[in-house]
Amino acid sequence: MRGGIDLGGTKIQAVVIDADGTVRGEARHPTPTTGGPPDVARAMEDALREAVSAAGVKPEQLTGVGIGSPGDVDQQTGVVSGARNLPGWEGSFPLGEVLSNALGIETRLGNDVQVAVEGEHLLGAGKPYDSLLGVWWGTGVGGGIILEGRPWTGRGAAGEIGHTVVKRNGARCPCGRRGCLEAYAGRAAMEAKAHREHTKGIETDIFKIMKKRGKDRLTSSVWDHALRERDPLAESLIRRAVRYLGTGIASAVNLLDVEAVLLGGGLGSRFGDRYLDDLRGEMHKHLFVADSPPHLEVASLGDLDGAIGAALLVLKG
Amino acid sequence: MRGGIDLGGTKIQAVVIDADGTVRGEARHPTPTTGGPPDVARAMEDALREAVSAAGVKPEQLTGVGIGSPGDVDQQTGVVSGARNLPGWEGSFPLGEVLSNALGIETRLGNDVQVAVEGEHLLGAGKPYDSLLGVWWGTGVGGGIILEGRPWTGRGAAGEIGHTVVKRNGARCPCGRRGCLEAYAGRAAMEAKAHREHTKGIETDIFKIMKKRGKDRLTSSVWDHALRERDPLAESLIRRAVRYLGTGIASAVNLLDVEAVLLGGGLGSRFGDRYLDDLRGEMHKHLFVADSPPHLEVASLGDLDGAIGAALLVLKG
Repeated sequence: MRGGIDLGGTKIQAVVIDADGTVRGEARHPTPTTGGPPDVARAMEDALREAVSAAGVKPEQLTGVGIGSPGDVDQQTGVVSGARNLPGWEGSFPLGEVLSNALGIETRLGNDVQVAVEGEHLLGAGKPYDSLLGVWWGTGVGGGIILEGRPWTGRGAAGEIGHTVVKRNGARCPCGRRGCLEAYAGRAAMEAKAHREHTKGIETDIFKIMKKRGKDRLTSSVWDHALRERDPLAESLIRRAVRYLGTGIASAVNLLDVEAVLLGGGLGSRFGDRYLDDLRGEMHKHLFVADSPPHLEVASLGDLDGAIGAALLVLKG
Repeated sequence: MRGGIDLGGTKIQAVVIDADGTVRGEARHPTPTTGGPPDVARAMEDALREAVSAAGVKPEQLTGVGIGSPGDVDQQTGVVSGARNLPGWEGSFPLGEVLSNALGIETRLGNDVQVAVEGEHLLGAGKPYDSLLGVWWGTGVGGGIILEGRPWTGRGAAGEIGHTVVKRNGARCPCGRRGCLEAYAGRAAMEAKAHREHTKGIETDIFKIMKKRGKDRLTSSVWDHALRERDPLAESLIRRAVRYLGTGIASAVNLLDVEAVLLGGGLGSRFGDRYLDDLRGEMHKHLFVADSPPHLEVASLGDLDGAIGAALLVLKG
């Protein structure tokens, strides 16, 4: 049995999987919004212990625990730096070591999106392919690359398709640069754009829906409800995101010529199927070898992909 | 000894190299502008025979001949299709077989840019790196990728960085699509833009320089002369090309995180050193991990890189 923890900006998802990759126990805790890295590490420990007990085993019975983390992840040392969507995590914190000591088992760390893509490749929608590009459409737009059946991480930071420039001198991205794909398609950027449009006087019910649902941000479920009510601003911003996603993905395919593109992440998993044809059409406009597009699929492990993928890090001994 | 032929739109370059990769003989013939693939194949045969005799050997003494070709290259069958910058080559032609029969030796085919990048990786400026992106800035903008010391060709068409979309809904590209890097930086697109600006009344001496030098196109040497005379239109179009190159290359680096970027091709080899700092500055604006940019270098094998790289195909038996 192996443990896996996906550390997200809003939730911590833990799983215990068996040798076949079947989930034997799982638990989900909210990510602390105050405090600092030690508080987050404690919440992660709690989530894992709960998943372990749901699986009916003890922590010592796990071969190890894999962790998918945002920020700059040093796989060798287990140190995570600059995880800006986590509380007080601008600096460095030895997450791997702290959790390893707390749980009494080995830990292995990886980049959150990359491990989710690996999870999908080994156990999910990516199984049939030797080469694929995972595009994780959520708060930001992340990515992971599999080539010849193995992850390609470059010098450690490969896969940042969200920072492909789709429009030179274009919109300001949350990363501070201009014209990145994430500036058009990331949930955070879309929310900021919705605010600006609303302030300008464009009519929309999306912020009413947000409040009614007790949220303080435009979560993917808020977008979903707004789309179901055919809110014009919500529809236009999602379509805009899909157009830019298609453009950025086509550019990446022109460069890498992978067999498949997998759409995951909060928005990708939720809206992928609905917008897959639109996305295909947008990609088609820019694919250099337009008559042999890559397979385009939605991630299949759902919310657990990050945690399952993280658990698979343990295999790699 | 191995032979190599680089089939270009304007010239056919042949070399013979020894086991160390040293050039023992070379020859250059103009690419026929009329006729069809058989005429082109004949000119290739002549060029190779000349290089062979310059090397003081006989064709039968070659282990084989590698060919770098534009268009859609089938490495298995040696068939080249849709090489649109060659006369009458819209369809398919069994270039490998025809040359193999004519010369009485084995031939191996590869994509022209990819083999040039491999040549640079094995014998030129790319030697120190395990992963690199070659950006071939010429009539078009081509590319080649080396990962873990080996070429990455995807499903056969990887490396098309020239068709990275740098500006959605942007300029029309010679490929017919919109906003590709090549639409701003390719020599052909720059020439078309210079014509449009000149027709609009923008002053420039570049077309006078072209005629004075007996050319019917804005070759890289015409651009060079115009720049030396500080022609404002030439300067502004080259700077624009460099800006877009920096944008497109940064996007590719964000995705692949390679150790090095190599600038080659007709314009790249000629102007690379002069504009390397500008290019670095443009890339910096868009690099996600801006504090560890890849090494940026100019290809070092010069005009022979394609032919030398082609000859290296033979090694791979």
